[in-house]
Order: sequence, then structure tokens, then C-alpha cells
Amino acid sequence: MEQQSPFPIGPQASPETFTNKVWFNLLVPDEDHSFDTHVYNVNFEPAARTYWHWHPGGQILLVTSGIGFYQEKGKPARKLLPGDVVTIPPRAVHWHGAAPDSSFAHIGIGTQEHLGPIAWLEPVTDAEYGEATAQ
Amino acid sequence: MEQQSPFPIGPQASPETFTNKVWFNLLVPDEDHSFDTHVYNVNFEPAARTYWHWHPGGQILLVTSGIGFYQEKGKPARKLLPGDVVTIPPRAVHWHGAAPDSSFAHIGIGTQEHLGPIAWLEPVTDAEYGEATAQ
Repeated sequence: MEQQSPFPIGPQASPETFTNKVWFNLLVPDEDHSFDTHVYNVNFEPAARTYWHWHPGGQILLVTSGIGFYQEKGKPARKLLPGDVVTIPPRAVHWHGAAPDSSFAHIGIGTQEHLGPIAWLEPVTDAEYGEATAQ
Repeated sequence: MEQQSPFPIGPQASPETFTNKVWFNLLVPDEDHSFDTHVYNVNFEPAARTYWHWHPGGQILLVTSGIGFYQEKGKPARKLLPGDVVTIPPRAVHWHGAAPDSSFAHIGIGTQEHLGPIAWLEPVTDAEYGEATAQ
């Protein structure tokens, strides 16, 4: 994948929690818990997306390039463009990823990490993804 | 100021805590304390910089454009380019700003905001700034 923002792309992410190819680069690992926060750069190829998941302490997305989508369970999906900011409340079940025909990149900020790690759920099915992105 | 990254610039910041012109745009105000975190976009004209200050809960900078500097009190300044990440420990006295001949922009992440607001100190003098940026 070609670099889409000033932040380096990093290695390909585990295929166990993403559909299609995603690259994940941990920019602030916060190993000593000085900040109670993780920061990472995530790049998605077209049609790539996370599984459904939730964060005990919440998450903030800063969109840096491409076209993507964010959806909370039971709500309409929101189309995302560079400069958009998404605030994902603690424990809200959601997914995020690229549009079918565009790559996508965002900075992710994992807040209040002391509340616990991401809880991964099932994949976003092709039917769910198709309905969400048909805008 | 021309927009330097996908994130909007916002209004000019208070001249009481910055030297020269700075634009500050609060992207995540976190009014209900859901995230214990603030996120903001800061743009500096050439030679603009913060006063010396510290954050009770720490701060993370993500450099999005231009050339800038970061300095902790008593340490050499660090030159910053797009893609650089700065982790500023809680209570570390520091300043950040643009190079003398370049504009500069970063995303700022104010972490652990429940520990209290920024403590502002004195301006970075022209002598301090000149020494720090003579690299």
C-alpha cells in the first residue's frame, strides 16, 4: 500500500479481526501507562474493514485520507472524508473501514486504556457492508 | 493562514499564551468527559510558538505539516517534520512551535484531562528560541 498521510503505514494487521487487507502502525504504545492512551495509524485497502468491536474506554478517529465508513450497531453508517473526526463512546459496538472503491486511512486514539482492551465480535458480513456503504 | 492538513484551522488563538500568530481548533471538546481526552489542531505561522507550559496529564503531538521544534526545559530542542510523534510526559515543562522560516501544524492530544488544565508559564524568549532553532 502506498503511504496516504505523513504517518508511516507499518505492517499488515492480523487477519483475525479485519476483513480484507489492513495495515496497523502503533505510534504511541504507552508501555509504561504514562498517558492511559494508545495512538495508531490504520490503513485499509478498498472494501477492507474491522470486525464489529467495542472499546471499554472509547476511541477517537481522525480521518487522514481516502473515503471510509463508520457504523454503530443499529444506526445508519456515516460516510467519512479527510478531516472528519469520529468520537466512539465507551462500549458502543461499531465497525470502521474503507469504501468499496477507495482506500482509507485514519489515526486512531484509544482512550482510557486502563478500562481494558478491545472486545472483538463477529465479522461485518458482505450484506451488512453492502447495505451500509450503498450511499 | 492556508490550510496545511485535512483538519480545519479554526480561529486565531489567544495572544496571552503564544508568541506570534497561532490558530487553535478544538476537534474533540469532550464536554461530558466521556474520553478524558481533548484533541485539537494547532497551526503556527513561521517563528510562532507556545509559552513554556506543562500538562498535569501529559500531551501527545502528531506533526501534520511544516517544520517545527519541541523542547523540554533543560534539554536540547528536537526538530520536527510531518509524521513525527512527540510524547510529552505529565508535568514536563516544555514549548513547541514553528521553525523561524516555516509554518507548522500538529494535532495535539491532551491526555488524562481529569488531572487538570494546562499550567502556563513565561514566554520563550527570542534568545531561547534562537538558540533552540539554530540547528
